[in-house]
Amino acid sequence: MNISIIGAGNVAWHLAQALEKADCNINEVYSRDIAKAEELAEILYSTKAVNSFDFSRSNSEIFFICVSDNAIASVASQLILPEEAIVVHTSGTQPLQALDTVEAYKGVFYPLQTFSKEVKIDFSDIPLLIEANNNQVLLKLKDIARRISKKVLQVSSKDRLVYHVGAVFSCNFANHLWAMSKEILESENLDFEILKPLIAETVNKMLHSKHPAEVQTGPAVRNDTKTIFKHKDFLQDDEDLLKVYTTLTESISDWHRID
Amino acid sequence: MNISIIGAGNVAWHLAQALEKADCNINEVYSRDIAKAEELAEILYSTKAVNSFDFSRSNSEIFFICVSDNAIASVASQLILPEEAIVVHTSGTQPLQALDTVEAYKGVFYPLQTFSKEVKIDFSDIPLLIEANNNQVLLKLKDIARRISKKVLQVSSKDRLVYHVGAVFSCNFANHLWAMSKEILESENLDFEILKPLIAETVNKMLHSKHPAEVQTGPAVRNDTKTIFKHKDFLQDDEDLLKVYTTLTESISDWHRID
Repeated sequence: MNISIIGAGNVAWHLAQALEKADCNINEVYSRDIAKAEELAEILYSTKAVNSFDFSRSNSEIFFICVSDNAIASVASQLILPEEAIVVHTSGTQPLQALDTVEAYKGVFYPLQTFSKEVKIDFSDIPLLIEANNNQVLLKLKDIARRISKKVLQVSSKDRLVYHVGAVFSCNFANHLWAMSKEILESENLDFEILKPLIAETVNKMLHSKHPAEVQTGPAVRNDTKTIFKHKDFLQDDEDLLKVYTTLTESISDWHRID
Repeated sequence: MNISIIGAGNVAWHLAQALEKADCNINEVYSRDIAKAEELAEILYSTKAVNSFDFSRSNSEIFFICVSDNAIASVASQLILPEEAIVVHTSGTQPLQALDTVEAYKGVFYPLQTFSKEVKIDFSDIPLLIEANNNQVLLKLKDIARRISKKVLQVSSKDRLVYHVGAVFSCNFANHLWAMSKEILESENLDFEILKPLIAETVNKMLHSKHPAEVQTGPAVRNDTKTIFKHKDFLQDDEDLLKVYTTLTESISDWHRID
C-alpha cells in the first residue's frame, strides 16, 4: 500500500511509523515547513519530504491529512491529487464533510489517543475510528487499520462527535482538575507529588470498575456537609476554584441522590 | 510495639496488615459488629476480636481509630484506655482536635490513599501524614510510619485539609467526570471501554509532566469555539452535563488566557 502523509506534527509522526511497520510504503511527507517534513522523512525508510501540494505525480493511493482541525478543509481543497486517490482526515472533531471540497474518495481514520513526539506509543491498543462514504474505501481503510490496531470500529461522524465529548470530560477536564489541584497545594507551599500515588490508584480503580459511579468517594457522595463547608471556606477567595468545586459537588450529590 | 485497631473497615484492614509486617503486634481489633472484627483478626498473627470499648486491661501503647470521619469524636470519647496510651485517628478531613474528648496522648496518622478490601496495596509508596501535639508522641508515630512507608510527612491539621481539597479535585471530581463520560457514551449506545486507553495515557502524561497545565489539550485550551458550540449543542437537553461542561470549559479558557 502506497501512502502520503500531509502534516508532520504529533499524529503524523506516530501514524507514519505505525503504517510503515504494517508494511505500508510512505512515499511523501508534506509540511509547510520543509525542515519538519525532513525530520519525519529521515526516520522513515524511503520517504521524500515535500512542501508543495502538487501530488499529481505521486503513486500513493491514500493521502492521510494530519493537520490541525481548523486547517483540514483548506489543506484538502489545495491538494492536487492523482486519479483514484483516497483522502482521509484523522480528526476526532471534524465530520467526513470537512473533505467535501476535494474531488477524490473520502474517509476518516481517527486514532483515539493523545500523542506527543517524545512518548513512544503502541498502536495496537489504540482504537481506530473509521468512516467512509464508499464501501470499497471503507474496506480498504479497515484493512489498513486492522494491520496496526486490534480495535477498529466503524463510527459515523455523529458518533465520533459523541466519543469526542466523552473524551473532553474524561481527559481534558480531568487534566484541568489536576492542574487546579497543583495550584491549590502550591498556594500553601505543599507538594503536588504527594497526591500522585492517590491519583494513579484512583484511575486504576476506575479502569477496573464496572462503572466509575460505583467507586465514587469523597465528601459529596457521602453528603458530608461539614467537610464541604470547610473546603468552600478555604476556597472562598478564588472565584474560579470555588465555582468548579460547587458545580462538581452539586453534580455528584444530585447524581447519587437519584441513584 | 503493641497496637490496637478500632474499626474493621478498609483502612483498618490494610493498616493492620502493614503494621504487623513492620513487626508491630496487633493485640485487639474492635468492631461494633464482632463478626467483622473476627474476619480481620483471623488474617492477623495473634489478635483478639472485641466489641467493647473497655481496653483498660490491654497492653497496647497505641490505639488507631479507623472509623468513619463522623464517628471519630464519639468513638474516642467512649474508649476506656490504659495509662499512657496514645490515641490516633486516621482521617484526612478531621483535625487533631477531633480527639479533644479523650484523656490520652493524641495524634493523627493519615495514609493518603484510597483503599478497597479486595485490592492489595503496597504501603511503602503511600504518603503518611503525621501530626501530634507532643514531641515524644510525634517521634513515636514517625518511627512507626517510617517502618511501613518511604514517604512520611509531618503535616498540620490545616495543611492536611489543603491536601484533602487537592485530593477532592484530583480524584473525587475526576472520577465523577469519568462517570459522566460513560453516561454520555451509553446514552448513544457507545462503549466507554473505547475511551479507557486514552484516559490511561492522559494520566500517564500528566504524572510525568512538570505541570498538568503544560499537557492540557482539547477545544477549550486551543479556543476552538466551533467544536465547543457543537459539544454544547449535543449536551443541550441535559442541564447537569451542560453546566459541568460550561464551567470547566470557561475555567480552562480563563486559566490559559491569563498564562
